[in-house]
Amino acid sequence: MIRYPNGKVYTPASPKEKARTVKESTYSNRGMTLEEDLNESNQYYLSHDIAVVHKKPTPVQIVNVDYPKRSAAVIKEAYFKQASTTDYNGVYRGKYLDFEAKETKNKTSFPLQNFHEHQIHHMKQVVKQQGIAFVILMFTAAEEIYLLKAEDLFPYWEKMKQDGRKSIPKKDVEEKGFLIRYGFHPRIDYIKIIDKLYF
Amino acid sequence: MIRYPNGKVYTPASPKEKARTVKESTYSNRGMTLEEDLNESNQYYLSHDIAVVHKKPTPVQIVNVDYPKRSAAVIKEAYFKQASTTDYNGVYRGKYLDFEAKETKNKTSFPLQNFHEHQIHHMKQVVKQQGIAFVILMFTAAEEIYLLKAEDLFPYWEKMKQDGRKSIPKKDVEEKGFLIRYGFHPRIDYIKIIDKLYF
Repeated sequence: MIRYPNGKVYTPASPKEKARTVKESTYSNRGMTLEEDLNESNQYYLSHDIAVVHKKPTPVQIVNVDYPKRSAAVIKEAYFKQASTTDYNGVYRGKYLDFEAKETKNKTSFPLQNFHEHQIHHMKQVVKQQGIAFVILMFTAAEEIYLLKAEDLFPYWEKMKQDGRKSIPKKDVEEKGFLIRYGFHPRIDYIKIIDKLYF
Repeated sequence: MIRYPNGKVYTPASPKEKARTVKESTYSNRGMTLEEDLNESNQYYLSHDIAVVHKKPTPVQIVNVDYPKRSAAVIKEAYFKQASTTDYNGVYRGKYLDFEAKETKNKTSFPLQNFHEHQIHHMKQVVKQQGIAFVILMFTAAEEIYLLKAEDLFPYWEKMKQDGRKSIPKKDVEEKGFLIRYGFHPRIDYIKIIDKLYF
């Protein structure tokens, strides 16, 4: 078992996520990742009865499990599977929330390759079902975090398929999205924006 | 890789789930588990734009991953973690849905040990947040499936802590719960009950 200096057990996620984590710890001297910040924020919402939002576990295809006597089952062979939904969902004032959080080092635009077709498809299904779907986009160089409604992301996705532009210009994110100021507790207060937009 | 006779890849879940699956295939000649029936029903709801409900992946603590050249990452050591929420959640007509599905071979009562304290706690948080929380209870001998609102489960949980009765009498489930008739498509049409109860 590998541990962080603070004693927390190291959990490698998918190789892609792993690469991202490495990138993140260079960009940011806070030593926190966007994911950790969101987990902290969700924990804050939970403990203050503001919202119930959880990150879904990383989907894993388990192939081989060992059941040693008198100790816990050990997974000996497994593979990362592609998720069929976004990473986060939950409930706020009765309404269903669903989102994905991504970051980029790019300074002038947000690359759409951060998303997968099935995630866009899932968010479309959520919107059709009158759920609240959005993305949290972080520009790591500027340390700016935006909330963009899924409805405002879809046109860029469709346009990419037509004219091939593979990113959203940062000025469009600034215009259509909502800046989330980085706070102390919760660190990323996205519910404040949701509250303004939908209630 | 181990495959079922129908060609589907075998995915062992937790040892407990594994044991349950074995039990299930003996009790039922349909050869389907409650989980598979619910997955089929959720797939039906999804493809017919009725609701978006997914089962969460089994949470796994990954300890060691191998990254072989030119092939997929292999998880070499991992452990089953206890989930902090229920297994299923999603959206129906904008509202947040959250539930757990359990079965028993017991003929006269439903054992409460099928649930964990943290699941009950999670459902209480969901209800506080005005989400729709419930359990799907299957009596395998009678082949009866009931939907019971989480609010109607909580008192039995509390009572268990006081007087130690560790199950819900079947007649109480019949009285307070709602029978879900087993169908063809979807197999377990729980949304029909949700629609009547909450909309």
